[in-house]
Amino acid sequence: MDIVEILKLYSEDVDKEISKTLSTLQPDTLREASEYLTEAGGKKIRPALAVLSCQAVGGSTDKALKAAASLELIHTFSLIHDDIMDNDDMRRGKPAVHKVWGEPLAILTGDTLFSKAYEILIRTVDDNVSYEKVIDSLYLLVDACIKICEGQVQDMSFEDTFDVTSEEYMEMIYNKTGALITVATSMGGIIGGATPEQIEVLRTYGKNVGLAFQIQDDYIDLTGDESIGKPVGSDLVEGKKTLMVVTALERASSEDRDRFVELLEAHDESIIPEAMDILNKYDAIEYAKDTAYNYIDEAKKAVDILPDSDARKSLCDLADYVLSRSI
Amino acid sequence: MDIVEILKLYSEDVDKEISKTLSTLQPDTLREASEYLTEAGGKKIRPALAVLSCQAVGGSTDKALKAAASLELIHTFSLIHDDIMDNDDMRRGKPAVHKVWGEPLAILTGDTLFSKAYEILIRTVDDNVSYEKVIDSLYLLVDACIKICEGQVQDMSFEDTFDVTSEEYMEMIYNKTGALITVATSMGGIIGGATPEQIEVLRTYGKNVGLAFQIQDDYIDLTGDESIGKPVGSDLVEGKKTLMVVTALERASSEDRDRFVELLEAHDESIIPEAMDILNKYDAIEYAKDTAYNYIDEAKKAVDILPDSDARKSLCDLADYVLSRSI
Repeated sequence: MDIVEILKLYSEDVDKEISKTLSTLQPDTLREASEYLTEAGGKKIRPALAVLSCQAVGGSTDKALKAAASLELIHTFSLIHDDIMDNDDMRRGKPAVHKVWGEPLAILTGDTLFSKAYEILIRTVDDNVSYEKVIDSLYLLVDACIKICEGQVQDMSFEDTFDVTSEEYMEMIYNKTGALITVATSMGGIIGGATPEQIEVLRTYGKNVGLAFQIQDDYIDLTGDESIGKPVGSDLVEGKKTLMVVTALERASSEDRDRFVELLEAHDESIIPEAMDILNKYDAIEYAKDTAYNYIDEAKKAVDILPDSDARKSLCDLADYVLSRSI
Repeated sequence: MDIVEILKLYSEDVDKEISKTLSTLQPDTLREASEYLTEAGGKKIRPALAVLSCQAVGGSTDKALKAAASLELIHTFSLIHDDIMDNDDMRRGKPAVHKVWGEPLAILTGDTLFSKAYEILIRTVDDNVSYEKVIDSLYLLVDACIKICEGQVQDMSFEDTFDVTSEEYMEMIYNKTGALITVATSMGGIIGGATPEQIEVLRTYGKNVGLAFQIQDDYIDLTGDESIGKPVGSDLVEGKKTLMVVTALERASSEDRDRFVELLEAHDESIIPEAMDILNKYDAIEYAKDTAYNYIDEAKKAVDILPDSDARKSLCDLADYVLSRSI
């Protein structure tokens, strides 16, 4: 099966789990707001990573489905709270949760999905997964949640400075995005009965895929698709410190750097063409793309030592897919 | 030891656990914002309930401390998010977290404390508590977190209506406040090795104390202390549906009810004296106080079947304290 079909397949299974766990929420407004973004789609990369990692070490799909759902719920919770904090209007082609129901309900909806993520992961004990494995998985999930918050605060702290190194940027995106993707693979491995060495391999794979994923996300913003509700180049208008921007700031001549800072401080769409020229002059976009490709290579190399299987092949395909996607 | 000394004693132990788990947070702003409300005090009733419930079934204090800390962290997280939603300025005599650091960081601080609560409860396995007991405790905690969100949405939905029955009010406060207090006692019991019957007893105790606690909170608002930063009668000015208000709405003559609704819709401090007159005319304050006393009696009766011990006595003292406190 090709990777797009696999993503679709597990997406359906995971949506069923999510739909079941959210169906009991009361009052109706809270349930509707909680179901809203899940019903709006999403690529479901984290759930697929968990299921494939479980399979790649010989585990069965059904044992990993609740863990997969928990990862998607945490991801959705963080999107809802992020959209409030960034005051973003749109998400997955629809008005953001706080735009539909207001900020108070959006905060509570995020908190509810966060709780539901833990609930469903705890319930993995009902699928004949040992208490110890569930505790280990919970510990990984909570660690990723803390890192998501830390990464978000780091990202916010970058707003007021142009002295962000690419190392600081990489640490931030690891926390904000990479940690949960890393947990998806290691949790899948734990539930599938992986050896400590296999878990380490899956962790390495997940970390590299996660870093490439965020770089690609920022890359798509520069080149991407207006259909998802985000105008092309909006990160430049917001003055966001992406790997491209950080690289150009590090490489530019003093004169170009000053001009680039001026453009990023303008917060106006008219700066996009000139800012793009500076990014291109210092090969910043090419550098980011190369960096992402290197991470994907590392990811694929890491899983080489796992037994040959369809799941291992799909993990490699999924790594490639992360860079080929345009949304 | 009297109950105030006991609260102080366990408060110190629990603060140490909380301080240790928050000390690793990065960047500094996130750590400082996370520590802020814990350092500002709080009565620490939930942690004391967990520790005393553990002791009352023969368990040792040290095994319950992380669970106690997790309850306080959940409580603190919910205060921070509540203050954003209600746009409250003050908490524990200090400016609210979102007033000091802004809304985005306050949302993230809440999310971080939420995560830390689960982390510290998971770590109870390090204190020789079995995986099964930790999973059972986690399941209780997550259930309370979902109820807190549900209760908060119910509370918000009451804002736009005067047709709230006292049954609906009781269900709302059970979700919003009672559930976490109920979990404090049952979790303490589980960790302390309680029998299923003892857990049920502690649950009944906790539920009754929790309901009395919220009624008393609303009562204090009508009669209370400006030193905590909340003006007396502010719930009336906000038109909040407390048990007193709901009772008066149920009991009042059609004419008095219309006038009472008018006053509650005015959102002005000048309405307090007349609104108080209506509450008194229909014995609404007395009824709420009686209801709270009945819950406390039920709570104390419930623990009667536990073995005689200092902890059992303290649970009774703590139940009485809930109604005697003025903050």
